[in-house]
Amino acid sequence: MSTLQTERTTVKRLAKRGNYDRETIVAILDEALICHVAFVLEGSPVVIPTIHTRIDDTLYFHGSAASRMLRSLRNGVETCVCVTLLDGLVMARSAFHHSMNYRSVVIFGKATEVTDRDEKLRVLAALVDHVAKGRSLDARAPNEPELKQTLVLALPITEASAKIRTGGPIDDEEDYTLPIWAGVLPLKLMPQPPIADERLAPGIEEPDYLTNYRR
Amino acid sequence: MSTLQTERTTVKRLAKRGNYDRETIVAILDEALICHVAFVLEGSPVVIPTIHTRIDDTLYFHGSAASRMLRSLRNGVETCVCVTLLDGLVMARSAFHHSMNYRSVVIFGKATEVTDRDEKLRVLAALVDHVAKGRSLDARAPNEPELKQTLVLALPITEASAKIRTGGPIDDEEDYTLPIWAGVLPLKLMPQPPIADERLAPGIEEPDYLTNYRR
Repeated sequence: MSTLQTERTTVKRLAKRGNYDRETIVAILDEALICHVAFVLEGSPVVIPTIHTRIDDTLYFHGSAASRMLRSLRNGVETCVCVTLLDGLVMARSAFHHSMNYRSVVIFGKATEVTDRDEKLRVLAALVDHVAKGRSLDARAPNEPELKQTLVLALPITEASAKIRTGGPIDDEEDYTLPIWAGVLPLKLMPQPPIADERLAPGIEEPDYLTNYRR
Repeated sequence: MSTLQTERTTVKRLAKRGNYDRETIVAILDEALICHVAFVLEGSPVVIPTIHTRIDDTLYFHGSAASRMLRSLRNGVETCVCVTLLDGLVMARSAFHHSMNYRSVVIFGKATEVTDRDEKLRVLAALVDHVAKGRSLDARAPNEPELKQTLVLALPITEASAKIRTGGPIDDEEDYTLPIWAGVLPLKLMPQPPIADERLAPGIEEPDYLTNYRR
């Protein structure tokens, strides 16, 4: 059993879809462009989408120092972060066995604020590179006022699980003879041709990490 | 001011991205294939991805009657549901102004179980049709044991907000002369060619709602 499995990360429903391998979990976190962060605010659940990045065994996310979410989380409250990649629509013969192919990760833990200046700069570069690898080398780095306005939070990836479904539909045996099309419609998040900013300075080439964008 | 705006749905950060129009909110809910449902379990936040559908001013989601999430929510506890559509990566000249183009919706409220048999069947058909329009007419309808195993929850869309970002990067005025490429990389969730199940009965044509899949 992997160290990322705990009582509350153990997948109860459809347990065979559960996975606690660090490599599997990390690959899903790295491919996903956004995560959903949940926390409790005045007794009520709140969930918000945001950008994340991962360095070693820590998940980072960031935002305005004025953000209600980040200010709540900075105080070391419990959070739950979920990342979901949608891979396809599963069409079974029965409505009941319709499903989706997906890869998701759930992490539980307490986030802490990154206050060390060097670490903060390193994480902010990683956040830009998470979106487009190599981009942080091109972009103008944060200046002091920008650094102050940005809150960076770190969540240890120590209590996590992945849930994965792949493959075709699984119908009840007696339904296989029904005259109903069954199979999978794969889905892919595809980059379209980059659109240059109207005010782009002359003579600047489109960077390769965008022309040939891949996740 | 629309009726969907309340104190807690009011977008505080980047308030100009906030939108409370019913039409706008409904369009995002209808386009998204999945939502993230947050709730509080034994004092801690939990967030889980699931399929949803909308009928009129109600959001529905479903799952196994044995699901921990659904059993918690059935008891009328507070929930927060978030739907996010990712439209593009926004590359600014400064790392600080990097962003994403997105359309998201957050709904707050209490879910209740759908117990009426006819309503439950109507919602289950709508859930299948949400994924692929027209599919519920082809698929074998739920039988009695399947109906019993499925829990359907209804969340009124009365307290909600959308948050939308579109367009190119917005840099600080002094950064526009920097020799850095800036613009948007649009992203689209694209259907790939359908893959028929290995055990597909002979002579069954691929349905048009999959061949020409669109959201």
